[in-house]
Amino acid sequence: MEPFLSGAREQIDVYLGAVLPPASEPPVRLHAAMRYAVFGGGKRLRPALAFAAARACEAEPERVLPVAGAAELIHAYSLVHDDLPAMDDDVERRGRPTVHVRYSEATAILVGDALQACAFGLLAGAGVEAELIAMLAHAAGSEGLVGGQEDDLGFRSEPVTLERVTSIHRRKTAALFGFSVLGAARLVGAPDERLRVLGTFAEEYGLAFQLLDDLGEARDTEKPEECSVLRVISPEAAVERARGHLDRALEALSPLGAPGRWLAGLADHLSGRLP
Amino acid sequence: MEPFLSGAREQIDVYLGAVLPPASEPPVRLHAAMRYAVFGGGKRLRPALAFAAARACEAEPERVLPVAGAAELIHAYSLVHDDLPAMDDDVERRGRPTVHVRYSEATAILVGDALQACAFGLLAGAGVEAELIAMLAHAAGSEGLVGGQEDDLGFRSEPVTLERVTSIHRRKTAALFGFSVLGAARLVGAPDERLRVLGTFAEEYGLAFQLLDDLGEARDTEKPEECSVLRVISPEAAVERARGHLDRALEALSPLGAPGRWLAGLADHLSGRLP
Repeated sequence: MEPFLSGAREQIDVYLGAVLPPASEPPVRLHAAMRYAVFGGGKRLRPALAFAAARACEAEPERVLPVAGAAELIHAYSLVHDDLPAMDDDVERRGRPTVHVRYSEATAILVGDALQACAFGLLAGAGVEAELIAMLAHAAGSEGLVGGQEDDLGFRSEPVTLERVTSIHRRKTAALFGFSVLGAARLVGAPDERLRVLGTFAEEYGLAFQLLDDLGEARDTEKPEECSVLRVISPEAAVERARGHLDRALEALSPLGAPGRWLAGLADHLSGRLP
Repeated sequence: MEPFLSGAREQIDVYLGAVLPPASEPPVRLHAAMRYAVFGGGKRLRPALAFAAARACEAEPERVLPVAGAAELIHAYSLVHDDLPAMDDDVERRGRPTVHVRYSEATAILVGDALQACAFGLLAGAGVEAELIAMLAHAAGSEGLVGGQEDDLGFRSEPVTLERVTSIHRRKTAALFGFSVLGAARLVGAPDERLRVLGTFAEEYGLAFQLLDDLGEARDTEKPEECSVLRVISPEAAVERARGHLDRALEALSPLGAPGRWLAGLADHLSGRLP
């Protein structure tokens, strides 16, 4: 899977390098900060999902670059805003100062805002159908990613249930994974039946991913009790749930046959994070 | 002009009330905060411009509701983020606590993010052509509104020229006015020649508006030297410039004849703010 993943990283980086406004053009500071936010060594998982979904539909990954790029820009903007002092107050990300530390808090707010506009501009500029843009707006908006964030903030101080945690994971993470996979499939004209299969995969994969991400964070932090999922179930139970989601993600792919192997590879790769 | 303006306010408020997610649906706090941000007694100038542009194209204003609504949501989100402590640090807007004061700073960041997604979702959900969505992304992004904001922040501590001030006004304000007017005209299928006329109007109107807004703010503030335009020219010269922009805005409308009278009315209304 490593060659596929590193190929995806390279392909999306070239693409985003070309579609983001050049740092040499004004406003130069903002444009430089946008690139700092986007080119910070991310795994590019959302583009990889989009490319693998294109392959699952027997289409060339190049065709879904606008979906892959828009999903990655939304992800990048959400990290910049998450890191802000009023949110997670993180001073480092992937070994580098976060955007508000490197530039300023005001610029970090604006970088996120501009990256979100850029994501929609990228999709629209590629001339995709309006329905695909509406999909991204839904995945990224108050009923998707942003709503998941808001509930995630709120519930640090509130009573919490497993249903609530799953609902947050579904919106905060699985929604944008869903757009990456389904947006790509729609863009290459996949039939409804295949969209259903891919939708199930993306949802299960997304839930597994966020559980494992939470567990990893709990291991790395001094305050594991702040880890959402561990407030409601044991680490062992969380691992079991993640395993269940991954199994169902792989199961969902079986009707696709051989073209589903890149998506299956991504799920296998994620299962490497199971303890 | 008052009946037109109050009619526009009523029409857009009904529309936005219907397209924004209900405050009764989760995440309820975020949805309530989004409505608090949007329904705070704004003048609804961008919708009024869109409606007047529709009339200038002899089309019913109802047809351009998605453009009017998207422009207003982008404006609303930009105010929420502008008011944040890291930006202008305003605790009150239109006589009410700002969103971060009423809710929290984190929620205010997310409200802005969600309103931006909602603006694009609204346009896309209305099934408009991708080009119109690309227009909004450009007006709202790093080369438009957000870029204007970034330069506006930067230049409080930097040497400044009249060209720079005008460039900031063009992006911070005129760009979204331009989308309101031109987006509406495109949506109702206006021919290129009329788009040129309307583009000139929107630019001149936007520059006049921001000059008068800056001057008004300088009168109301204890630190008029922080007012961008007064760092480079006298109040009298700024008024003269605003008058020139308004004259050119009205001049631009002459080829439109009678259907241009609502846009002319908006320019006349703005000239009431000339001292």
